[in-house]
Amino acid sequence: MTGTKANTPIKIQDKTSSLEFLKKFDTFLFDCDGVLWLGSHLLPDVVETLDYLKSLGKQLIFVTNNSTKSRPQYVKKFAGFGITVTEDQIFTSGYASALYVRDFLKLQPGKDKVWVFGESGIIDELTLMGFEALGAGDPRLDEPFDTNTSPFLKDGLDEDVKCVVAGLDTKVNYHRLAISLQYLRKPDVHFVATNIDSTFPQKGIILPGAGSTIQSLAYASDRTPEACGKPNLNMLNAIVKAKNLDRSRCCMVGDRLNTDIKFGETGGLGGTLLVLTGIETEERALDTAHEHPNPKYYASKLGDLYEFTHQ
Amino acid sequence: MTGTKANTPIKIQDKTSSLEFLKKFDTFLFDCDGVLWLGSHLLPDVVETLDYLKSLGKQLIFVTNNSTKSRPQYVKKFAGFGITVTEDQIFTSGYASALYVRDFLKLQPGKDKVWVFGESGIIDELTLMGFEALGAGDPRLDEPFDTNTSPFLKDGLDEDVKCVVAGLDTKVNYHRLAISLQYLRKPDVHFVATNIDSTFPQKGIILPGAGSTIQSLAYASDRTPEACGKPNLNMLNAIVKAKNLDRSRCCMVGDRLNTDIKFGETGGLGGTLLVLTGIETEERALDTAHEHPNPKYYASKLGDLYEFTHQ
Repeated sequence: MTGTKANTPIKIQDKTSSLEFLKKFDTFLFDCDGVLWLGSHLLPDVVETLDYLKSLGKQLIFVTNNSTKSRPQYVKKFAGFGITVTEDQIFTSGYASALYVRDFLKLQPGKDKVWVFGESGIIDELTLMGFEALGAGDPRLDEPFDTNTSPFLKDGLDEDVKCVVAGLDTKVNYHRLAISLQYLRKPDVHFVATNIDSTFPQKGIILPGAGSTIQSLAYASDRTPEACGKPNLNMLNAIVKAKNLDRSRCCMVGDRLNTDIKFGETGGLGGTLLVLTGIETEERALDTAHEHPNPKYYASKLGDLYEFTHQ
Repeated sequence: MTGTKANTPIKIQDKTSSLEFLKKFDTFLFDCDGVLWLGSHLLPDVVETLDYLKSLGKQLIFVTNNSTKSRPQYVKKFAGFGITVTEDQIFTSGYASALYVRDFLKLQPGKDKVWVFGESGIIDELTLMGFEALGAGDPRLDEPFDTNTSPFLKDGLDEDVKCVVAGLDTKVNYHRLAISLQYLRKPDVHFVATNIDSTFPQKGIILPGAGSTIQSLAYASDRTPEACGKPNLNMLNAIVKAKNLDRSRCCMVGDRLNTDIKFGETGGLGGTLLVLTGIETEERALDTAHEHPNPKYYASKLGDLYEFTHQ
């Protein structure tokens, strides 16, 4: 399957193709879910592959659109799988959103507040930067919505809220949607989305992603959010800057064409590797008819890099 | 403000303009919320105006995109305001959706089932037609979603479900979104929306409308629903047929340009009347720069028709 055309994706399928692939890059950026694990289930030979890459002196960075966990929570998740990583190796879309709020929108920690439609991963990252984050897990939002009694309306909207950050929220309800909309109706309040993935896979089924509920707010408010996660390049630029990377020696490894591979491709990275343990198929990897970029490389699974080189 | 151009909206502002307007039409189709009432608050001189129209021999029809109530529930709501109407004068978007499922999609009552994302108004109309309607108010959907324990996944999807009907659901949660998505991922399952209003006014604030949460499902499933409510002409055609109406002698009365006035305009009705008791302003009524059709007539409120003719 090794291509004759420059743009035919190359399959990692034996020791030779694995070694040729590995020597091209110094830094690997990994999507997590669908690449390293599926939910709470670690994929085969992932620990071995990461250890092998480290032994070769490669730099490993983990880039996830999952905003439900903060970077400290991710460090624990990795540790639970027996993978040692430090916080500065991890970039979540929640962290990217918090960076965007502080560094691009120039909102001021300790003064400006942020209304969050999402889970603790966003709240925690904003709080770590010194922002007061409202909404999200506030238990009063679990109560059924009533225009007359909602405490968020009764006391009036908080004038210090300058931004709504929206991400995946499995506690989505009408109360959260209704109050978020009130803030979005204020033209001076910014609208930031952690990411716009329409779905994500979990335990063999496809569930509504962050983009799905964010679309609800976008439609009701007639506004388009600034999206911070993959494939948006704000996130990649922040990583490249923080790690002082040579893009030509970086490879993005992911399981989605429309986020991970697009992210690596449009971000000008030296390579992209699609693994087929997530949402895509070999057919889609090779198909040039769809609107998404094709990967430079693809493999059945990440663990193949270890297995083919250690046979 | 009476126009010199044919397309300048005419303001109902005195006895003369009221009488000229009234003699042009035999049938009036009314939107309800924002025209007759605001939530639970009846607007001024509405009962008097409706009685006056009846005394002139006019036919009155009530057309609402609100799918949360069935026609029998609407009869009660009208009665609570002291307005006597019969069920056959009322067309809701829930009823229009049920008609669409039976008469256009040709699903078979007693055999095919419908999954409902919405409130009792949809369930009731489908049930009255003999369809088994699943989802919606099922209390098991109020439980937090868990892929492993959701009873809707554990026993597998219902093979007899041939359509998802989605409408406003203030009990929206991740469980309802996730299961609705599973049905929408089956290509043979139809996707019907009661209406696509992005918002609706309630007690002085703007809340997310049916279209907002439906957009969530549309984005996650990458599908576009068939919309049944105003301004979709399926609904108007059903009314015209049921009532054997002469369109040129009909006037649509509503408070929204993008649903009510568009409905009357694209449906070829003789006239449209915008009232300013809901979501629109006089400025918007007269502005020809926006994308929406302008009304033929407009008035501060429906009750003006009574007040100006009984001074």
